[in-house]
Amino acid sequence: MKQNPIGIFDSGIGGLTVLREITRLLPGEETIYLGDTARVPYGSKSRETVLRYSREVAAFLRKYDVKMIVAACNTASAYAVEQLRDELDIPVTGVIEPGARAACAATKAGRIGVIGTAGTVRSGAYVAAIRAINPKVTTFVKACPLFVPLVEEGWADDAITTAIARRYLAELIDAGIDTLVLGCTHYPLLKKTIAEVAGPGITLIDSAAATGVEVARVLKEKNMLRAGPVSAHDAHRFFVTDSPETFTAVGSSFFGAGLEKASLAQLTDC
Amino acid sequence: MKQNPIGIFDSGIGGLTVLREITRLLPGEETIYLGDTARVPYGSKSRETVLRYSREVAAFLRKYDVKMIVAACNTASAYAVEQLRDELDIPVTGVIEPGARAACAATKAGRIGVIGTAGTVRSGAYVAAIRAINPKVTTFVKACPLFVPLVEEGWADDAITTAIARRYLAELIDAGIDTLVLGCTHYPLLKKTIAEVAGPGITLIDSAAATGVEVARVLKEKNMLRAGPVSAHDAHRFFVTDSPETFTAVGSSFFGAGLEKASLAQLTDC
Repeated sequence: MKQNPIGIFDSGIGGLTVLREITRLLPGEETIYLGDTARVPYGSKSRETVLRYSREVAAFLRKYDVKMIVAACNTASAYAVEQLRDELDIPVTGVIEPGARAACAATKAGRIGVIGTAGTVRSGAYVAAIRAINPKVTTFVKACPLFVPLVEEGWADDAITTAIARRYLAELIDAGIDTLVLGCTHYPLLKKTIAEVAGPGITLIDSAAATGVEVARVLKEKNMLRAGPVSAHDAHRFFVTDSPETFTAVGSSFFGAGLEKASLAQLTDC
Repeated sequence: MKQNPIGIFDSGIGGLTVLREITRLLPGEETIYLGDTARVPYGSKSRETVLRYSREVAAFLRKYDVKMIVAACNTASAYAVEQLRDELDIPVTGVIEPGARAACAATKAGRIGVIGTAGTVRSGAYVAAIRAINPKVTTFVKACPLFVPLVEEGWADDAITTAIARRYLAELIDAGIDTLVLGCTHYPLLKKTIAEVAGPGITLIDSAAATGVEVARVLKEKNMLRAGPVSAHDAHRFFVTDSPETFTAVGSSFFGAGLEKASLAQLTDC
């Protein structure tokens, strides 16, 4: 079991930022990544639909005997992690609890902002997670549905994106937050622009980094860390439900080197 | 058969602009609309995936004995209309041929611009359709992936949207087009902004209007026009694959009054 891969999934490409953190922290681990590109995005869809998709993806990852599943997608974390935890006999981690913990550790004013997709914001998952950690903290949320398409358009560092970020962040800044959770796996690619708009008084929390730490903690605690090293080939395998070529072409900006090929996955209805 | 409804589908809500034109031109017709909101958008997905989705949607519409199917989605029109036409024994119409015909009729300079999703542009369907109608016309295409999320954000009439439109349209304007096809069913909601940026020398072609005319022509030619009037209830039925509440809430800006309720559709794999 220790030697088995970690399974990581996202609606698309954004979860690669989480995978990158996991492989950076745990270079001895093998991984299987699935991007559900045939149904991306999850952020605009309902709880029932995102839960169904997440179950189908988890069933696919289980076929590869993964020892742990990481929902590297905020919307799937908000809607599906608790259920998957109940239904599966392996550890399941999302990105929301780690992000919430990091934010609670960082805030001094006790005022945290969270930005994410419409689904993540609507779910109330960050508000609940932060309240569970520290009931004295006040959380302010804001959906930023244009951020993902802006990243995908390649406009991460652009005057238009700055203007949109200004509008999205205005009410959070006015609310006096001192900590801002990037509650979507695409947002780390906008970090520079968001940091400029937020200003030096606001600490940005990248859930990807916090999730990497959490995965390492869980595996260590359960004595499930893999004895490395990994093989040069196939240590990290990538699957998508649509357009492997597009995924590999765009993926390297999220993951860095080592993403040479992705295979097409067939999911089955659960 | 004449009395049967017309089936209309889109990846989501945009096709309602086409439905509105059809019901305006043909007030005696009953309609069944399906928005595939569980898998929206189609525009970023591959030919194979869009074709598979379109077949599943067509199979759903056939259960309601539709007399004709309208792919009210540019990406589905580009990738699936020909195949559906081959596979089904009822008329099938997309939005691309009608839009191409209207554009060819409008251009004087013989230079047509087409804007649409990444999928529609990549398919080359407009270029091929325009060439088939008039080989002397030169077509210039540009993918505008931010336009749909801008409409869905409610920023259709906004300085940020104008700035983005300026950037997207610059190369088409420089190319000397005199006609611009709005090659995505969401874009009619940006007509005012696009017209301002394009200027008075460029005629905008709304595929929705052209498709309404085409549907009327086909039904008349085949002697399949319904003898009205329609009943006050259930003349226009709406189905979605996810979040009926969101669809009905947002749908009225696309369709106008008469969209009170949508039902959840279960599609089956083909």
